[in-house]
Amino acid sequence: MQVIETVSRLQSLADTERASGRRIALVPTMGALHPGHLALVEAARERADRVWVSIFVNPTQFNDPADLDGYPRQLEADLDRCRECGVDVAFCPSVEEMYPAGSVTTVQVGELGESLCGASRPGHFDGVTTIVTKLLLASRPHVAVFGEKDYQQLAVIRAMARDLDFGVEIVGVATVREADGVALSSRNVRLTPEARSQARALVRALDAAESAVGAGEGDTRRILKMVSDEIAKAPLARVDYAEMRDPHSLKPSPPELAGAALLALAVFFPASDSDSTGGESVRLIDNRVLVPSGSSTQQEP
Amino acid sequence: MQVIETVSRLQSLADTERASGRRIALVPTMGALHPGHLALVEAARERADRVWVSIFVNPTQFNDPADLDGYPRQLEADLDRCRECGVDVAFCPSVEEMYPAGSVTTVQVGELGESLCGASRPGHFDGVTTIVTKLLLASRPHVAVFGEKDYQQLAVIRAMARDLDFGVEIVGVATVREADGVALSSRNVRLTPEARSQARALVRALDAAESAVGAGEGDTRRILKMVSDEIAKAPLARVDYAEMRDPHSLKPSPPELAGAALLALAVFFPASDSDSTGGESVRLIDNRVLVPSGSSTQQEP
Repeated sequence: MQVIETVSRLQSLADTERASGRRIALVPTMGALHPGHLALVEAARERADRVWVSIFVNPTQFNDPADLDGYPRQLEADLDRCRECGVDVAFCPSVEEMYPAGSVTTVQVGELGESLCGASRPGHFDGVTTIVTKLLLASRPHVAVFGEKDYQQLAVIRAMARDLDFGVEIVGVATVREADGVALSSRNVRLTPEARSQARALVRALDAAESAVGAGEGDTRRILKMVSDEIAKAPLARVDYAEMRDPHSLKPSPPELAGAALLALAVFFPASDSDSTGGESVRLIDNRVLVPSGSSTQQEP
Repeated sequence: MQVIETVSRLQSLADTERASGRRIALVPTMGALHPGHLALVEAARERADRVWVSIFVNPTQFNDPADLDGYPRQLEADLDRCRECGVDVAFCPSVEEMYPAGSVTTVQVGELGESLCGASRPGHFDGVTTIVTKLLLASRPHVAVFGEKDYQQLAVIRAMARDLDFGVEIVGVATVREADGVALSSRNVRLTPEARSQARALVRALDAAESAVGAGEGDTRRILKMVSDEIAKAPLARVDYAEMRDPHSLKPSPPELAGAALLALAVFFPASDSDSTGGESVRLIDNRVLVPSGSSTQQEP
């Protein structure tokens, strides 16, 4: 496995690989790799000759400095995981490499990045679209792979790649979960043991809503009431948002469901005392596309 | 010469050319080609194996609908000129091809695009950076060539290409002028005969300022007074801006020049009655980098 730290070296290698007719798949990550990321690597492997993983904790997508400081960093362990999984290139640039002094350019997707996580984290998706643009231009892949756990991120990146004519196939991969159903996240390690246990409230709420919709419930307000009741059973949980949205435009669902709807959740839990930022809260997200019986099952964001 | 109308066909050809080791130079234009554009084609030819010219009147960089409507369009004549000059590919997409319904993504460079022409034409440079990003991603060139007449545009595109890691060399080409010194522009044909004659005021003002600075004048206010006096000799002229700026950051020059300074002008003149928009005014721009004797001559935006 090659470990590359500069954009220019990565671009040279991309040109060489492409000129040789080899397909490149990029898996952009912020490190702290877990089996969810490894599922992305597997999906990449199925679609390309070379799997490249970028590991970069992107400061411009953190609106909260404590969240950035507390984000887990474990580069050597991540590189070991990449080697074990047969990754061909790990791209690990410094912050200075990606954002030299004087950088002024951003990529924006407007309203699509302003609701849900964008409302809770102003500027977050400008940071995401800008760094993903840079990573795609640095690695020139044929395919780029992202997790469906970050549903809005995937929708934003699909829109960006389409609108700017990247010519890169954007692939979404189903969320990988712990045995108890909690979505894998690099943030899970920051939870107190009690909070980790109560984090199951998110997937329980998604299950409850899915069951209800499957049984014919179509009233958005009643579905969301059921969701908040379910989350309220976790006393440590503090809801950031719980919303139903169009799976493509992310616009609010109508009062009565007419087709598939995204149920998206973001919930704060207490961080462990051992956390370097000293007990800030941890924000977990999860989502599911709910499909009323009899409607189409088109789920791609 | 190939005439290509879709992004996907252009990308396929780019991949083929790059895989064969051939260098591509892109010359983005809005058509209405004149010898200024042909100088860009020549510069492109010197730097690459293939010269590709895009011809697209980009609606998102026009803040004034009358200016967009009045912009000259002459595709067949432009294609003939391209053929005569040995252009290899003319890329002539429709508006629908470049901006399908639902497009939401923009590229922005912040303050760099908000002064000078950006102040007179709000949103103009967001349109420029977005379309140039799309054209670069559609054509995947090694080099892209732009005129120095649009100095701020060149500075904005250099910043964007650098910040987003395009890995494309951005080349600026000196302004081509008529016999009387007026900078070539597709807008010149829209001027009344009297306005065309008085348009010489811009280059006279640049010459006067350059002479003064060469003779030791370093007072920004006095230089700008000289410029406005010179333009005032053209009674049809209405100044939009006349400013002195840092050639790189485009920040205002200090009261006493400490090094090279950009003198940038934008002046309105009456449009001819034959103009389809019925006598709107035409905005001409010109610029020169003024270098005090004894200071460095670094002029690249």
